[in-house]
Amino acid sequence: MNRDDMISERERRLGKAYRLFYEEPLEIVRGEGVWLYDAKGDRYLDCYNNVPHVGHCHPRVVSALCEQAKTLNTHTRYLHDNVLNLSRRLSQTMPEALDVTMFACTGSEANDLALRIARAKTGGTGIVVTEHAYHGNSRDIAAVSPAYPNFEGLGPHVRTVPAPDLFRGVYRGSDAGAGYARLVREAFADLSKYGHKPAALLIDSMLASDGSPTPPVDFLQLAAEATRAAGALYVADEVQPGFGRTGAAMWGFERYGARPDIVTLGKPMGNGHPISAMITSTEVIEPFSENTKYFNTFGGNPVSCAVALAVLDVLEEEQLLENARQVGEQLKLGLKSIQDRDDRIADVRGSGLFIAVELLHEGEPDVQSTVRIVEEMRRQGVLIGAASRDGNVLKIRPPMPFNAQHAEQFLDTFAGVIQRL
Amino acid sequence: MNRDDMISERERRLGKAYRLFYEEPLEIVRGEGVWLYDAKGDRYLDCYNNVPHVGHCHPRVVSALCEQAKTLNTHTRYLHDNVLNLSRRLSQTMPEALDVTMFACTGSEANDLALRIARAKTGGTGIVVTEHAYHGNSRDIAAVSPAYPNFEGLGPHVRTVPAPDLFRGVYRGSDAGAGYARLVREAFADLSKYGHKPAALLIDSMLASDGSPTPPVDFLQLAAEATRAAGALYVADEVQPGFGRTGAAMWGFERYGARPDIVTLGKPMGNGHPISAMITSTEVIEPFSENTKYFNTFGGNPVSCAVALAVLDVLEEEQLLENARQVGEQLKLGLKSIQDRDDRIADVRGSGLFIAVELLHEGEPDVQSTVRIVEEMRRQGVLIGAASRDGNVLKIRPPMPFNAQHAEQFLDTFAGVIQRL
Repeated sequence: MNRDDMISERERRLGKAYRLFYEEPLEIVRGEGVWLYDAKGDRYLDCYNNVPHVGHCHPRVVSALCEQAKTLNTHTRYLHDNVLNLSRRLSQTMPEALDVTMFACTGSEANDLALRIARAKTGGTGIVVTEHAYHGNSRDIAAVSPAYPNFEGLGPHVRTVPAPDLFRGVYRGSDAGAGYARLVREAFADLSKYGHKPAALLIDSMLASDGSPTPPVDFLQLAAEATRAAGALYVADEVQPGFGRTGAAMWGFERYGARPDIVTLGKPMGNGHPISAMITSTEVIEPFSENTKYFNTFGGNPVSCAVALAVLDVLEEEQLLENARQVGEQLKLGLKSIQDRDDRIADVRGSGLFIAVELLHEGEPDVQSTVRIVEEMRRQGVLIGAASRDGNVLKIRPPMPFNAQHAEQFLDTFAGVIQRL
Repeated sequence: MNRDDMISERERRLGKAYRLFYEEPLEIVRGEGVWLYDAKGDRYLDCYNNVPHVGHCHPRVVSALCEQAKTLNTHTRYLHDNVLNLSRRLSQTMPEALDVTMFACTGSEANDLALRIARAKTGGTGIVVTEHAYHGNSRDIAAVSPAYPNFEGLGPHVRTVPAPDLFRGVYRGSDAGAGYARLVREAFADLSKYGHKPAALLIDSMLASDGSPTPPVDFLQLAAEATRAAGALYVADEVQPGFGRTGAAMWGFERYGARPDIVTLGKPMGNGHPISAMITSTEVIEPFSENTKYFNTFGGNPVSCAVALAVLDVLEEEQLLENARQVGEQLKLGLKSIQDRDDRIADVRGSGLFIAVELLHEGEPDVQSTVRIVEEMRRQGVLIGAASRDGNVLKIRPPMPFNAQHAEQFLDTFAGVIQRL
């Protein structure tokens, strides 16, 4: 079937909620490491996909998947080593009290469960998120995901705060952290005023959907303080920055010395296999588990856990955090030197293998250049994406085995594309 | 690690919401076809698990999983044949207008999406479910799942109706279908009265969680009429009866000639791999997809779709619907002949490989015998479960390749257990 037919059949069979990347969508048929291959045999350097965290089709992960799938796949109502081993391995990476893990299949499910637990613990319902946050697709989580328009709108129990942004945000000075945290406090106060007792601050430690702005280093700590002072819990959504993506730490909140009450994990956890988790303390979970029966049919099954354990093994053995740190620095330096020659590039930021490039034209968001760069890079065999409220931030977020040569290829292609723009 | 240590570490690490089957929980380490093996090497005849639909670790399904996982695992923002092929295959099994498929990872996600779509289409919020229904674990779906107690309670936008039950229900005569459908109409009227515009009747075509009672054959059609008359949609939850489990049809609603507006699929779809789907018409989905952006990271990925396609292939090639029909009849006949000798067995019902046995003592639910039978069967190497509001219904629901010899073993063991009870 040719591409145009595929596209029209897709629209008919999957409905209009499905979107494709690129003006000329890609039919990808094979993946390996940081490379994707289309149906014509053309090769693309993947600088976008974070789900295949340790690389597309990593042999070790595929082997763990196949071996366990050949042997047994049941559920958590029988005993099995894998779910305990995974729970143990994850807690070892978390702040001490966070040693209770519940498994689900998607980041949406993990966040949905986290908010249920936060509400049970606090007796509240009010949730604070950032202005352009995205946390998932269930009804309850869509209500706290302003980045994705929905017919329901945000809930009356939801308040948004501006993403802390030292580059273009409302506060930029040395006391910016306190300023942004004050907005969190005011959001909770406003919820209370309208009868919505505070339950949680739900925040992506990378602020990915907000365009990955650089926050004041003290923001998360101060926001967590403001949250607890309001009687609510701080929920760290680690679906984007988790599993060492930032190069600086295993979890995004660690970079800022913040201490969440609940942590949610998703996308990279199974390298594309559907597994996610919600991690918290016994103290936080108890009011929920005392009064609520919860079962997730596929969550924590032996196959999913085997896959997630293999991802953790590969991360360690291939020293991918250190790789992310080094290659991320190389990317940022390279991008900054391109920035010196081109004033459309207003800001280069991020950490490890999560880099954001903000484009402005006469001080205003340059959406047109952003889109053209994404499309032109794709034509040149390099896949990146765009994000942020204004749609003027390039998102560069390759699989973690992205190395110095890959970074060179990306930078060369990028420099050429920018020059000819 | 010994079993007691595993159990206590589990309680500590996974929290109290996790439950184990059986007084002496099983540590299952291997599965094959209809057999499960524990850590000591003991073998169990699996008469309970419906998720490994075409048999534990079916080689064809495992092979499809591994081949695709070695080749590519991405998402629906690139084109890929598998998602279109699966969508096409599924629509071929559905009533004509139901040709739009959206993919997710769990039955909860499929139901959560179905209710969002029903609300967008109807402009309503009110949901009617059966008294002891279970539809999933997201916040929104927990609110329509009375079978699982939760701290939040049911929502004010929810009404329950008694499960239609010709054996012990409120209506049992020839006009029972009309009687139960009238309760649905009244439930929607009550929702309207309290300002909750009707949105959906969400109903498991097998009524599994209600104890799989035998409904009047015209109930679903009449209930669907009452639902549409109230301006709401009929959502068929096929997570339990779907994929030919009942032996009578591919989908549970087909057995009753009913015509849903939305169908949700889950558990058996990937033989244990996390994949689910929501199927509807263009007309129903449009108000949702026009105004709502929806993306499910793992939903419809090439690996999940390859697995689901393999399950459909095996179902056809091994003629498992026909097998379910034949072996199901054998099981029911055998159970009915045991019933003739034992008056605790009050009712034997179900269809295909979903059989329910209701136990009464002096006309009252016999929970004690139900629990003892489940435990004693497990000691004798046969795994079954229990369900229903009163907990007095045995659930016999083996993988679909369950054959005549397996049925004999089940019946022999059951007869012995009942006799010595």
